[in-house]
Amino acid sequence: MQTIKLKTPVSILSSASVAGVKEGLGPLKNFYDKVLEDAEWGEKTWEKTESKMQTFAVTKALEKANLKPEDMNYIFAGDLLNQCIASSFGLRNLEIPFFGLYGACSTMAESTSLASITVSSGYADYAVAVTSSHFCTAERQYRQPLEYGGQRPPSAQWTVTGSGAMVLGTGKSPYITHITTGKIVDMGINDANNMGAAMAPAAIDTLTAHFKDTGRTPDFYDLIVTGDLGKIGREIVIEKMLEKGYDMRKNYNDCGCMVFDLEKQDMHAGGSGCGCIAITLCGFIMEKIKSGELKNVLFAGTGALLSPTSTLQGETIPGIAHAVAISREVD
Amino acid sequence: MQTIKLKTPVSILSSASVAGVKEGLGPLKNFYDKVLEDAEWGEKTWEKTESKMQTFAVTKALEKANLKPEDMNYIFAGDLLNQCIASSFGLRNLEIPFFGLYGACSTMAESTSLASITVSSGYADYAVAVTSSHFCTAERQYRQPLEYGGQRPPSAQWTVTGSGAMVLGTGKSPYITHITTGKIVDMGINDANNMGAAMAPAAIDTLTAHFKDTGRTPDFYDLIVTGDLGKIGREIVIEKMLEKGYDMRKNYNDCGCMVFDLEKQDMHAGGSGCGCIAITLCGFIMEKIKSGELKNVLFAGTGALLSPTSTLQGETIPGIAHAVAISREVD
Repeated sequence: MQTIKLKTPVSILSSASVAGVKEGLGPLKNFYDKVLEDAEWGEKTWEKTESKMQTFAVTKALEKANLKPEDMNYIFAGDLLNQCIASSFGLRNLEIPFFGLYGACSTMAESTSLASITVSSGYADYAVAVTSSHFCTAERQYRQPLEYGGQRPPSAQWTVTGSGAMVLGTGKSPYITHITTGKIVDMGINDANNMGAAMAPAAIDTLTAHFKDTGRTPDFYDLIVTGDLGKIGREIVIEKMLEKGYDMRKNYNDCGCMVFDLEKQDMHAGGSGCGCIAITLCGFIMEKIKSGELKNVLFAGTGALLSPTSTLQGETIPGIAHAVAISREVD
Repeated sequence: MQTIKLKTPVSILSSASVAGVKEGLGPLKNFYDKVLEDAEWGEKTWEKTESKMQTFAVTKALEKANLKPEDMNYIFAGDLLNQCIASSFGLRNLEIPFFGLYGACSTMAESTSLASITVSSGYADYAVAVTSSHFCTAERQYRQPLEYGGQRPPSAQWTVTGSGAMVLGTGKSPYITHITTGKIVDMGINDANNMGAAMAPAAIDTLTAHFKDTGRTPDFYDLIVTGDLGKIGREIVIEKMLEKGYDMRKNYNDCGCMVFDLEKQDMHAGGSGCGCIAITLCGFIMEKIKSGELKNVLFAGTGALLSPTSTLQGETIPGIAHAVAISREVD
């Protein structure tokens, strides 16, 4: 059993998101709390901008929940930067007991999972989950200096600039009900420009475990989302899940395909980065759950656990996916 | 309250450690399960060696507990490498649901804290906590190529080569009883060659919170250890805690001062790296608890949450410390 059913369902008390310029031109633009006007947001470095986005997302989510940093027992945070500095610098002034995480693009699901466990077990009254990514910090660190103007193959994804945060507690809808924690899955893919294909097997593994463990079928959910497999990974998931007897053709999408208009915006295989699922979940998806358009949602964060060093050393790309089930109503 | 008392005390079922060459010449050499004969351990890169150390530590700890990877509900793991690749590559074949962490040198305390919460809350029967570091991977990533032969100031610490793992469950002594989770503390220190001074305020903050929250005084413990502040940070902690009314002169030490013979081995300010507290805890300290020489131990992992990028961008060094209380007997 990779899935736990939370003994006390955990409430999502509030969520908040901040998005970058390109994200603010995308189809989900009306669901962000703030859209940046440029890549810097008044900061001298993009790393500082990314930290500022985390500060904003958490502060805004707390404000919406009518709570203060000192009410929070724990904050679970992570990002894509080396040593997770977007989180440590962005959150250092909040003075909330801090657990730093690294799950690559799966981090929003990881932070939500662990925050839920502390609240559900009664060890926390309130906990925050937050992640971020920034196109410019990610390019500089993982790929090439932006000034180099390198070209990217069509299978490459575009790191989302954004941060999303959720405040968890108890006592009101919507609820986090189940958590399926992923195992590391490495199918031997070694193309760092095709992360979707590298992460898809992990998503398939975790989604399958979730359905087996809970006895649910995909049609229990109004929406199943992964983040971020992009176009290529999304198609692999649909096809392989169908082969396993799970038809997700109608109600499945990937945040990397939702966050940008892939027809009109030239984003190659779609969005990526831990900010992608974070802003999609904390913006669009939470709004649709609140409005009642979505009643049951399964979101699965997917991460590629490689580094530039591991790629240079000839390693393949291990993937991971963590799934979290949200329902408007519980028994 | 930053401290939780675990409703069900969590048992340390087993621990295991593997240490590098210099560590194997140190005063704790008889407490490691394995000492490497060189920095490579038959691998082509030091990163792969570090991964192999994690595999070894977990496998050995499981063997000692007479348990298998498939018995484990969760593994909590992290290391110092960019994107935590020592953990993801070292543990990918174990197929245990995986939570990746980044807490710099505090990671062993972070992983133990979170693993304890899952076991104590009943969400896991068994969980593993593991971390590692390797002198050669850390130097290459954080400082200079080893071939450059750069000199280090006396305040610099020496990254420990080693990995330690613990298997947690329930039902037998010794027990993890309390967890004090640290806040990020940044006192404005910006010398990346003096991490001990940068991390000491976080250790002081968390230890003070622990004593206040639990009502315990330092003399409750036979041993209080931090890891890794080294000589300089250790002295700051003793002095500042005394000023606050907590006399830790008799029963406090730092793993960075314990792991090497600082008189005979030329290790400057002492050991560091998340492997330092991991091998000291999973080797020497656990043996002394098992033998009854130590009855109550408080260990506090301390991390410096900077990156080479943040230093180049003129940032100060945020620190964090997480404390975990272990007792041979519980009420």
